[in-house]
Amino acid sequence: MTQALVVLSGGQDSTTCLYWALAEWGPGNVEAVSFDYGQRHRIELESSASIAKKAGVPHTILPINTFRALGGSALVGDGDVNGQDATNPHLPASFVPGRNLVFLTFAAALAYQKGIHNLVTGVAEADFSGYPDCRQNTLTALAFTLGLGMEWVINIYAPLMTLSKADTVRLAIQLGALEALADSHTCYEGTFPPCSQCPACLLRAKGFEEAGIADPLLDRK
Amino acid sequence: MTQALVVLSGGQDSTTCLYWALAEWGPGNVEAVSFDYGQRHRIELESSASIAKKAGVPHTILPINTFRALGGSALVGDGDVNGQDATNPHLPASFVPGRNLVFLTFAAALAYQKGIHNLVTGVAEADFSGYPDCRQNTLTALAFTLGLGMEWVINIYAPLMTLSKADTVRLAIQLGALEALADSHTCYEGTFPPCSQCPACLLRAKGFEEAGIADPLLDRK
Repeated sequence: MTQALVVLSGGQDSTTCLYWALAEWGPGNVEAVSFDYGQRHRIELESSASIAKKAGVPHTILPINTFRALGGSALVGDGDVNGQDATNPHLPASFVPGRNLVFLTFAAALAYQKGIHNLVTGVAEADFSGYPDCRQNTLTALAFTLGLGMEWVINIYAPLMTLSKADTVRLAIQLGALEALADSHTCYEGTFPPCSQCPACLLRAKGFEEAGIADPLLDRK
Repeated sequence: MTQALVVLSGGQDSTTCLYWALAEWGPGNVEAVSFDYGQRHRIELESSASIAKKAGVPHTILPINTFRALGGSALVGDGDVNGQDATNPHLPASFVPGRNLVFLTFAAALAYQKGIHNLVTGVAEADFSGYPDCRQNTLTALAFTLGLGMEWVINIYAPLMTLSKADTVRLAIQLGALEALADSHTCYEGTFPPCSQCPACLLRAKGFEEAGIADPLLDRK
């Protein structure tokens, strides 16, 4: 019986979390879910699929066509991802209101059907963006809400929440996740090789530099 | 500036709530949102559109293609809507896990973009189905979670929560909602005229009977 469902975005953090879950619950007891929500870069879904394959876990991709219909965020539209949000100007334009809440709610619905109680997400406070739906208080409240709304205990684990990016890299090494990290995608420009200049690339590079090892993504051919 | 966003399913309860919101915040201050989520009966969306038009409120229809991909519920699939849920056998097969949580989260995202703080939903404890995501404790927790996750105050009003179906009919009369109720849809069979035999039709009929007036839907030509 599967024990945990990992929300896999194809990025560095969720990839590390997938290996964290494998260490926690054991091979054969973990699955992954990704969302095809109209993200600008299809490369994220390709990364997710190849990471799940490397990790040997079943992988579900669920479509969500609602965010594009809602519009209003640079992550699913054509705006500048480095600008600011219209409603909360201290938040970045890449903020998609409710995105992580929706991802975890659909993940919980899938978990419900599969008889799974544990969700794992790669969100972290160290993330430069400071999205409010990635903070621990939001996740705690959401897990409580999901439990009430589905009559099904949902635990939400965010093992990277309080780690620095360097500590996340160290954890990935310890968990044997480096080979899979070669397939992960981080760059906001959606390119491979990555642009190395956007905030996401810079944050990733800083983590590997502080941890003192080379990013396997950059050695990928 | 719009003050409130009503989640309009096209049914009796959400129609009554739309008029409740118009009485509460005044004409010109209310909008409605409906979801095209793969429901078996397209008549629900047609009802929503004509009710919004009668009420003179702007109406947004958002697509959600995720529930059909998730499958597992008779409401979006081909199973028997009168059976039972696989995970929680005391819940009906029409339970779509997370459905109301997702609807309200997307409604909150739309509200965020429009600068609206108040959501209105027609859910009621009197509803025979007892869906756990329609209970007051779930709504209270969800409003708290949405506020944290979006950094935006979201109030969720459920004015029918504790009313009997007869009291809901009396409220509709008082609010002048009867003409719009002629366009509402309730029947699980998705037919017009309604089947008059499914649990939804029977509950609706009981409410009108106890309130002592004729259902305008049944007089519609």
